Amino acid sequence: MSPTHARITAVDTYDIRFPTSRELDGSDAMNPDPDYSAAYVVLRTDAGDGLEGHGFTFTIGRGNDVQVAAVQSLRHHVIGRDIDRLCADPGTLNRDLVGDSQLRWLGPEKGVMHMAIGAVVNAVWDLAAKRARKPLWQLLADAPPEWLVAQVDFRYIADALSPEEALDLLRTGRKGAAGRAAALRERGFPGYTTSPGWLGYSDEKLTRLARQAVAEGFTQIKLKVGADLADDVRRCRTAREAIGPGIRMAIDANQRWNVGEAVEWTRALAEFDPYWVEEPTSPDDVLGHAAIRAAVAPVKVATGEHVQNRIVFKQLLQAGAIDVLQIDAARVGGVNENLAILLLAAKFGVPVCPHAGGVGLCELVQHLSMFDYVALSGTTEDRVIEYVDHLHEHFIDPVVMRGGHYTAPTAPGFSATMRAESVTEYTYPDGTFWAADLASDKGAAA
Amino acid sequence: MSPTHARITAVDTYDIRFPTSRELDGSDAMNPDPDYSAAYVVLRTDAGDGLEGHGFTFTIGRGNDVQVAAVQSLRHHVIGRDIDRLCADPGTLNRDLVGDSQLRWLGPEKGVMHMAIGAVVNAVWDLAAKRARKPLWQLLADAPPEWLVAQVDFRYIADALSPEEALDLLRTGRKGAAGRAAALRERGFPGYTTSPGWLGYSDEKLTRLARQAVAEGFTQIKLKVGADLADDVRRCRTAREAIGPGIRMAIDANQRWNVGEAVEWTRALAEFDPYWVEEPTSPDDVLGHAAIRAAVAPVKVATGEHVQNRIVFKQLLQAGAIDVLQIDAARVGGVNENLAILLLAAKFGVPVCPHAGGVGLCELVQHLSMFDYVALSGTTEDRVIEYVDHLHEHFIDPVVMRGGHYTAPTAPGFSATMRAESVTEYTYPDGTFWAADLASDKGAAA
Repeated sequence: MSPTHARITAVDTYDIRFPTSRELDGSDAMNPDPDYSAAYVVLRTDAGDGLEGHGFTFTIGRGNDVQVAAVQSLRHHVIGRDIDRLCADPGTLNRDLVGDSQLRWLGPEKGVMHMAIGAVVNAVWDLAAKRARKPLWQLLADAPPEWLVAQVDFRYIADALSPEEALDLLRTGRKGAAGRAAALRERGFPGYTTSPGWLGYSDEKLTRLARQAVAEGFTQIKLKVGADLADDVRRCRTAREAIGPGIRMAIDANQRWNVGEAVEWTRALAEFDPYWVEEPTSPDDVLGHAAIRAAVAPVKVATGEHVQNRIVFKQLLQAGAIDVLQIDAARVGGVNENLAILLLAAKFGVPVCPHAGGVGLCELVQHLSMFDYVALSGTTEDRVIEYVDHLHEHFIDPVVMRGGHYTAPTAPGFSATMRAESVTEYTYPDGTFWAADLASDKGAAA
Repeated sequence: MSPTHARITAVDTYDIRFPTSRELDGSDAMNPDPDYSAAYVVLRTDAGDGLEGHGFTFTIGRGNDVQVAAVQSLRHHVIGRDIDRLCADPGTLNRDLVGDSQLRWLGPEKGVMHMAIGAVVNAVWDLAAKRARKPLWQLLADAPPEWLVAQVDFRYIADALSPEEALDLLRTGRKGAAGRAAALRERGFPGYTTSPGWLGYSDEKLTRLARQAVAEGFTQIKLKVGADLADDVRRCRTAREAIGPGIRMAIDANQRWNVGEAVEWTRALAEFDPYWVEEPTSPDDVLGHAAIRAAVAPVKVATGEHVQNRIVFKQLLQAGAIDVLQIDAARVGGVNENLAILLLAAKFGVPVCPHAGGVGLCELVQHLSMFDYVALSGTTEDRVIEYVDHLHEHFIDPVVMRGGHYTAPTAPGFSATMRAESVTEYTYPDGTFWAADLASDKGAAA
């Protein structure tokens, strides 16, 4: 394949920002004007095979430069690594990055530094899957259970999940995997859509998009809530009328509430039969989620897009605080940490319904759910991947939806590679779009 | 005082690093070679009174540049603010910084961005105290309870502490405050010392420094543990023999263990009568600390230096997970958030024993404990501030220890101002020390 001792020669970073705030796409109770952005990283090698590893952290605008600086601070751990060894065992790099004793002080395992680690680790998995000529979901599903267990960092979760238990789960998960892989290739993985439910949309747009979602085959939609209760009552009624009783409707507060407010607000919307209430309060508040869940049943409680690491997920599961676990491909420390989280969810029997949207989050996270279905949980029951119809056109291998399902990627890699033209146009502040935009701002201000 | 509408005109940042790793000062089981550093911020104004606001995030080396970038990303929130209004109500700025919807995505309220907010908010408090011509502890102790309550962000903690409860605690805390302030000025606030107990020190040095600590009047010392059990047994025995039975000896694992390991290791050291075990596991693991505490009593459980925000402290208290709460002045979002944490501790009746050391952490955090004593908890019983004899010479208003006690600062401000010569010498990589050091490295490498 590659010459002996081919190495990582560069870790290039890009501050890429899309001006999404101008369309009110993505508006919710906490995030009124996001500019969906990516702190984007490309690993280059001297293998001569033309393959690169691509990864990114998703942000919503300001601070994307801080995230880029964080990725740059990791470079010295990556440059010069033998890519055969790196791709044969991304877990070693993962542990080296998480364990850097000086950088660890800035977390540990949370926030800016941890997301930067995720971008780099995911880029390694992208490279590994490209070299293996498999989509990442298939690389993971084909991997021996012992190897997958070795990819997981059990530090701080061993009290809830031992390596032996993880191995048992993966061995059991392999039974029937070939049949499920075939079913996945045929039918895809179920999605749900948030596109109708942004706060900034009119009731007419909400109705139109909700009906369209059902017509496209989605069996679940999601509405943003939490800014104004009277509005939420009206919007939930509007949406329920548009979709009818047989379609699931989730509501998402994006951390807007205290514990007591979450309980009251959710109860006030219960008549519209919400399937789950998402991010009712701070993602850090394990005990708060447990209290909310006890009070709002049968409405389910979901969280995860801002849950910082496997240690907090462990506690959410230990405390019985969530009905639905929402991994995000680019929040925690990358594939290795998400393997730990998928294993924890399997151990506790909690379904995983990933967060997606943003820039490229759908592209990434589908691989993790598909692996989970084929070779770990073994089911798609009550499992759906969020889908938002934004910015897919910037990717070389964008998600393909069919009948409300994510079709299984076939191209090698992690579907993380952005089109070169998009990088050129939206790099901030010097890309062609922003340079022109900032020049016209200056013109207007002058 | 200042002319009407004087404003913040600059938010200047400095990447300051001290080469402490060369002395093995500060070595522990997770941090073998820290270079104590500060992402340092200076707020300048056009008031013409010569006063500046100084603040910083403490780091241990690599990544200090990421922290500086994070502070710079907050500049637009601060520049141009009316300093009369800003100093009369730092809570508004605190909420604006925490609530920046785009930057919030990088946390929320944790890690690099939250520490950057802390540096800026603390700099505002430094300026406010200088303008009030009071040391910060006194400014806080003199403030009306209603004003202090308004400085606190109750979001995500209202289920454990309401504004009304906080007001009651502060009103009760004021009773007898004048007498306690006088006692504080006379006797100071008790400290304990970590200086003898770094992992890198020989048994002889440990013995000598432990005896010296007792001779200086300290009633508690601390030992780093967690790298090797046989070593820890020998070092704990050595230390206990040096100090005798009447002096408290804490042990500190710096997050080295899983839950089960923490229990076993602590029990193995119990014969040396450790007063508390500190950071036995991940600072994120509320339920893990609760399990450890239940298993190792009567050894107390302490944590906090890496606890990311008031929300996690709330849960540590709700879950009965800690006996001792260790605030850090520069980890959470600054004075406002530490007010919330002190109030939570008071509500739950848990003593606060701050983390200090590093660069300037002693200088800052003493003010918070002194306020807590004078006007909130009303006692120093079982309360001690960590003391480490490092790097104080770089500050204009360094801590002064007397008989194992922190003497009450009298200079206006938050004791955060570093000497100009130190900034010039240790700015990385262009300060005089580093420029020479890096040049000689290049010479050695060539």
